[in-house]
Amino acid sequence: MPEHSPLDVPEGDPFGPHNLPYGLFSTHADTNPRVGVRYGEAVLDTAAVAAALGSPHAALLAAPTLAPLMAAGRPVWQSVRAEVTAWLTDPAHRAAVEPHLHALDRVAMHMPFEVGDYVDFYSSEHHAANVGRIFRPGEEPLTPNWKHLPIGYHGRSGTVVPAGTPVVRPAGQRKRAADDPAAEVPSPARPGPASPALPGPAFGPSIRLDIEAEVGFVVGVPSRMGTPVPRTAFRDHVFGVCLVNDWSARDVQPWEQRPLGPHQAKSFATSIGTWITPLDALEAARTAPPERTHPLLPYLDDTGADAQPDGYDLRLEVRINGETVSRPPFAAMYWTAAQQLAHMTVNGASVRTGDLYASGTVSGPEQDQVGSLLELTKGKGPWLADGDVVEIDGWAPGPDGVRIGLGGVHGQVQPTGWTPQQA
Amino acid sequence: MPEHSPLDVPEGDPFGPHNLPYGLFSTHADTNPRVGVRYGEAVLDTAAVAAALGSPHAALLAAPTLAPLMAAGRPVWQSVRAEVTAWLTDPAHRAAVEPHLHALDRVAMHMPFEVGDYVDFYSSEHHAANVGRIFRPGEEPLTPNWKHLPIGYHGRSGTVVPAGTPVVRPAGQRKRAADDPAAEVPSPARPGPASPALPGPAFGPSIRLDIEAEVGFVVGVPSRMGTPVPRTAFRDHVFGVCLVNDWSARDVQPWEQRPLGPHQAKSFATSIGTWITPLDALEAARTAPPERTHPLLPYLDDTGADAQPDGYDLRLEVRINGETVSRPPFAAMYWTAAQQLAHMTVNGASVRTGDLYASGTVSGPEQDQVGSLLELTKGKGPWLADGDVVEIDGWAPGPDGVRIGLGGVHGQVQPTGWTPQQA
Repeated sequence: MPEHSPLDVPEGDPFGPHNLPYGLFSTHADTNPRVGVRYGEAVLDTAAVAAALGSPHAALLAAPTLAPLMAAGRPVWQSVRAEVTAWLTDPAHRAAVEPHLHALDRVAMHMPFEVGDYVDFYSSEHHAANVGRIFRPGEEPLTPNWKHLPIGYHGRSGTVVPAGTPVVRPAGQRKRAADDPAAEVPSPARPGPASPALPGPAFGPSIRLDIEAEVGFVVGVPSRMGTPVPRTAFRDHVFGVCLVNDWSARDVQPWEQRPLGPHQAKSFATSIGTWITPLDALEAARTAPPERTHPLLPYLDDTGADAQPDGYDLRLEVRINGETVSRPPFAAMYWTAAQQLAHMTVNGASVRTGDLYASGTVSGPEQDQVGSLLELTKGKGPWLADGDVVEIDGWAPGPDGVRIGLGGVHGQVQPTGWTPQQA
Repeated sequence: MPEHSPLDVPEGDPFGPHNLPYGLFSTHADTNPRVGVRYGEAVLDTAAVAAALGSPHAALLAAPTLAPLMAAGRPVWQSVRAEVTAWLTDPAHRAAVEPHLHALDRVAMHMPFEVGDYVDFYSSEHHAANVGRIFRPGEEPLTPNWKHLPIGYHGRSGTVVPAGTPVVRPAGQRKRAADDPAAEVPSPARPGPASPALPGPAFGPSIRLDIEAEVGFVVGVPSRMGTPVPRTAFRDHVFGVCLVNDWSARDVQPWEQRPLGPHQAKSFATSIGTWITPLDALEAARTAPPERTHPLLPYLDDTGADAQPDGYDLRLEVRINGETVSRPPFAAMYWTAAQQLAHMTVNGASVRTGDLYASGTVSGPEQDQVGSLLELTKGKGPWLADGDVVEIDGWAPGPDGVRIGLGGVHGQVQPTGWTPQQA
């Protein structure tokens, strides 16, 4: 009886021939990281096949990072995708390809590229309004700028980590409550002229550790400083999509955030999925964004006669310790990734290969569609406990009713490394 | 008569043997960027001398970036500095060294290292209070957190450019004034259900282009994620200092800033000096920071028995079109670079070789000591005009009364590349 071949991916598999996401992997036998493509429950060693079959893209695929492939541009992306599709589906290649498929559970996945700049947007109207109500009660939930520009801020690229990396509970400052359990407060042995207007903070391991389920966009083709990237050039610059967990310390955030935005509440870790889904795999998932309630400036306006369906119908799922807690719908995002790219560069800022920009928390209109515990629990908790495992998965409609699986992002919360002595 | 030798640097020269800043340079004859040391009005090709004299550090110095030297750590920094000092001052080396000195005006200076994460702090009490009065009139000038943590935010590392790079006037959104000259407003042809609470912005080239005179700290030795860097380890991680101009669009900033901080108002360009002054050259400039008016958490507290003079007495000078407009005193900064590093990592965030963090605008208590036009003109302008040349220079007291010159950062404002068609 012939052994089951990893090439025989069942019809309808979310990682079948219409998907083909890229990642950086290695094996026990060959510990050099190189470009792999997920196919069913296996990883195709594209570098090995390219070498064996004499592909013109062999050097790109043997690189120890996705960056050269990402930088090569859309015609090359399409050419490589066509080649990989042929390798996996043309019976003529079967004998050459089969030895280079490795079972998913036998490979190590690596950080797929070095992150250049990491920008985190805030593009779900539902999320922004929910957060506004919790953090700024009594005020308009949306700030006056929200419907006119995709609000975003720069995050820390050096602490973007691949799925599976444990996340250590951060320590930080927070506004002190009367019953705060924090171990540390400013030393009363050296009091200054304390002002009642400036009450001292507490310090300790975060007691409100949270997640944010997001979608990340990976820049492949760089742009020139001084030259904005128009909304319509989005697919010439963006290589693909990954899922993102923007871990957040909700006790640190409100204390530090005014006036220059979040910093320590976010910078300790951001997890990304290790499989980058090419935009070409998401063609069938393109969809119109929500109706624009306010007129937009020309560089953002996607309502004209040349309007493209710049939204993506990605269905996310958030699980904590195996239990599904939310199903955030990416199609509900007000601002599209194309608008975000146009805004990010309209001032002349350039993008580089490896820049990552994330959507902001994906939240839909329903309470079981929100992408953070802050919203799920209306600011009351419970929050993440040590040992909790958070998984964010997703899929998109593909051609002919198949699903395109998005590579998941998962991580486990580790106890703080902080001790009172270290503070 | 013997020709003047570039080795004969006049006594008291701010780039004499007590300074020895590092940069990345190339020449017409050898266009490979390599590590140079400024000496008087010349640049020493350290790579060439190291090769000629068989230095153990030859490979570090021949690298096309300062990064390997930066990553090598303090003992190596001190060893290389001792070696370079000997090359430049020991008559025995004169014949070997002299051919490898190039006149400053005959070399090209390059970006000295690739910037990892760029964090911009806000650590001058005078600046923060001045800005608070202008941007939030009627409120307390300092936010309640200001005296408890060094406020900072991540900036865009991909648009950090070396001194001399022209800076193109950015375009962006701003709150619309009745008499606003902006060319573009949201299209009235596609009005949405406009809300009086959400007035539309104007768009166009910035009409309030400003500078911020800052001091940057360059991380050499990386830290591990999850392990905070204590304040006292500052000089084991930070390689040196450069001057920074954090160009800012003051019309864009207040409109976009709430709630996640500045983004487009800053991300178009940040200029840094191309000479990195090693911390060891600034030993004599170490000074106590201002008196702490509020008790500090232990990880920030620098008032105890083990207190170190973590401030630096750097004297900045800002010139616009050759005219000195301000002399900001770095010694007046409330938060030190050591505290900033401790804060940046107290949540477990790591630092990498090439991370750059800047002090925030350096402003002293006097009106002729402020580091921005916003403060110099009390928010009224005039602002930068096209063609304006901005130069930030500085020096520090060295041993025996000599001055340690800081490499200047300069840049010229170029007209916008924006046209109404592009928006």
